[in-house]
Amino acid sequence: MRIARFSIDGNVAFGAVEGDGTVGSGDLVLDIIKGIPYADFELSGTKVPLSKVRLLPPVLPNKVVAIGRNYAEHAAELGNEVPDVPVAFFKPTTSVIGSGDAIEYPSFSNEVHYEAELAVVIGRMCREVPRERVKDVIFGYTCANDVTARDAQRREKQWARAKGFDTSCPLGPWVETDLDPSDLAIQTTVNGEQRQLGRTSEMIRSIEDLVVHITEAMTLLPGDVILTGTPAGVGPLHVGDEVAVTIEGIGTLTNKVIKRG
Amino acid sequence: MRIARFSIDGNVAFGAVEGDGTVGSGDLVLDIIKGIPYADFELSGTKVPLSKVRLLPPVLPNKVVAIGRNYAEHAAELGNEVPDVPVAFFKPTTSVIGSGDAIEYPSFSNEVHYEAELAVVIGRMCREVPRERVKDVIFGYTCANDVTARDAQRREKQWARAKGFDTSCPLGPWVETDLDPSDLAIQTTVNGEQRQLGRTSEMIRSIEDLVVHITEAMTLLPGDVILTGTPAGVGPLHVGDEVAVTIEGIGTLTNKVIKRG
Repeated sequence: MRIARFSIDGNVAFGAVEGDGTVGSGDLVLDIIKGIPYADFELSGTKVPLSKVRLLPPVLPNKVVAIGRNYAEHAAELGNEVPDVPVAFFKPTTSVIGSGDAIEYPSFSNEVHYEAELAVVIGRMCREVPRERVKDVIFGYTCANDVTARDAQRREKQWARAKGFDTSCPLGPWVETDLDPSDLAIQTTVNGEQRQLGRTSEMIRSIEDLVVHITEAMTLLPGDVILTGTPAGVGPLHVGDEVAVTIEGIGTLTNKVIKRG
Repeated sequence: MRIARFSIDGNVAFGAVEGDGTVGSGDLVLDIIKGIPYADFELSGTKVPLSKVRLLPPVLPNKVVAIGRNYAEHAAELGNEVPDVPVAFFKPTTSVIGSGDAIEYPSFSNEVHYEAELAVVIGRMCREVPRERVKDVIFGYTCANDVTARDAQRREKQWARAKGFDTSCPLGPWVETDLDPSDLAIQTTVNGEQRQLGRTSEMIRSIEDLVVHITEAMTLLPGDVILTGTPAGVGPLHVGDEVAVTIEGIGTLTNKVIKRG
C-alpha cells in the first residue's frame, strides 16, 4: 500500500494512494485513512483526487538518521575510502520537506548537491533490534534527497550545517509498505536529464546491517527515517533547477530549487 | 528566574524554583506556572516542595545542536587542533534525560566519558539571527553533560552513535533565565571528586558566534538547545559512578551511571 500525507482545504490527513503511482495522473485518488498508519487503521472510503491535494512529507520523523558512503562508487567519486564502520549522522526535523516543496539554496554555500537515497520508515519503537527482527520494525520505504552543501561538508568536520540546513531533506512522495528493497533502481534527474542511476543492491551495508548498527546505540520511534546512502553521480543544483528522485516500486520525489527568501 | 519541568502524582508541569538553588534543600519550592514558559506566563501561586517532585529535562527540544572543541585545552588533551570552523553536530531527542535520571552505559562502548557544558535554551523560532539580536532569541541557560562513547567517536567519522546513544544528553536541573553567561565557573565531579574545572570565558567561539553560525543554516525552535563545548579534564565514567555538572549561577545536574537493562 502507498500511504501519503497531504493537506486539502487546510486539513491534514493520511490517505492510501490508488492508481498507477504516477504523480500528476488525473486517475490517482487518495482514500482517506481513519486513524494513524503506524497502528491498525481503516480506509474511510472517502476519496479525493491526488491532483486536488498538496502532498506533505509522508512522515513526521522524530529523527532522521542518515548513512554516508554506503555505495563504493560514490565513496570513490568524492575521493573517500569505504569506511570500516558505517558513517551515521543526523538530519534535523527542520530540514524535512515533501514532494513539490522548494529546496531553498542557503546563503552559506555555493555548491549544493543532490543525493538520491532509499529511505526506510520505522513503524515501531525499537532498540537493539536483532537482525532477524529488522523486517518487523520497518513500516515502509520512500524516496529521499540528502541535499548537501558540499563546500561546507569539506570545511566542517561534522556535518550538522552541510546536511542539516532548512529544506535539505526532501522525503516522498509517499510511503510504500509492500516492497522488497533489496534490488531497486534508484535514479536522479535534473531538469529531466539523468544524473544518478544505481541499484539498491550495490549498498555496502544492507538495511538489516544499518538498523542493527543504529539501534545498538539509540531508540527509534514510529515515523523515524533512515537514509541508506547515495549511489555515484552526485553533482550540483542551481537555483531554478527541478530535481527528481525516482525509486523503482515507490515513485518520484520532485523539488524545485529556489533562492532562500 | 529558575524554571524547572517536573512531574508530581503523574502530572507534568513547569514551575519557578524559589530558594537558594541547592538541590535537596528542604526549603526549595516550585511555584507552578500557568501556561508555557516560552510565551507570556503567570505563576499560579500554587507551591509544591522540590523534594516531592521528580525533575524532568527542563526543556523538550526539537533538536540539540552541540559544538565540539570549543575550549583550546580540551581540544589539545584529545590531540585535536582548534578547528577553523565550529564543529557542529546533533544529539537526538531520544538521548535527553533530566537531573536524577540514570545514564545507561551502552553495550557498544567500553569508554564512556563525561563532558560538562553550558547549554543555551532557545526561546523563539529564529533563523539567520544577526549578532546583535542573539540575546533576544535566548530563553535561558542550563547545565548539560555531553556524554560521549570516546572509543566509538574515534572509530566512527560522524558521531551519531558516539554522542547520540540513549541517555547521552543529561540536561538540568532547571533553566536560569537571568544570567550573564560570559564568565561562569563550570565544574564536573565524579563521586564527589573534581574532574573538570573551567570558565565559560575560555570558549573559543562565543555564544553569539555559535547562534549566528548555526542559524545561518537552520531554523531553531523554542526549546531547542545549543551545547557550547566542554573544558579540559574529560575522562571515563563507570557503572555505579555519580557524575555532577555544576555551573555557577545555575545549579547542579546529577546523574548516576547504570548498566543498560
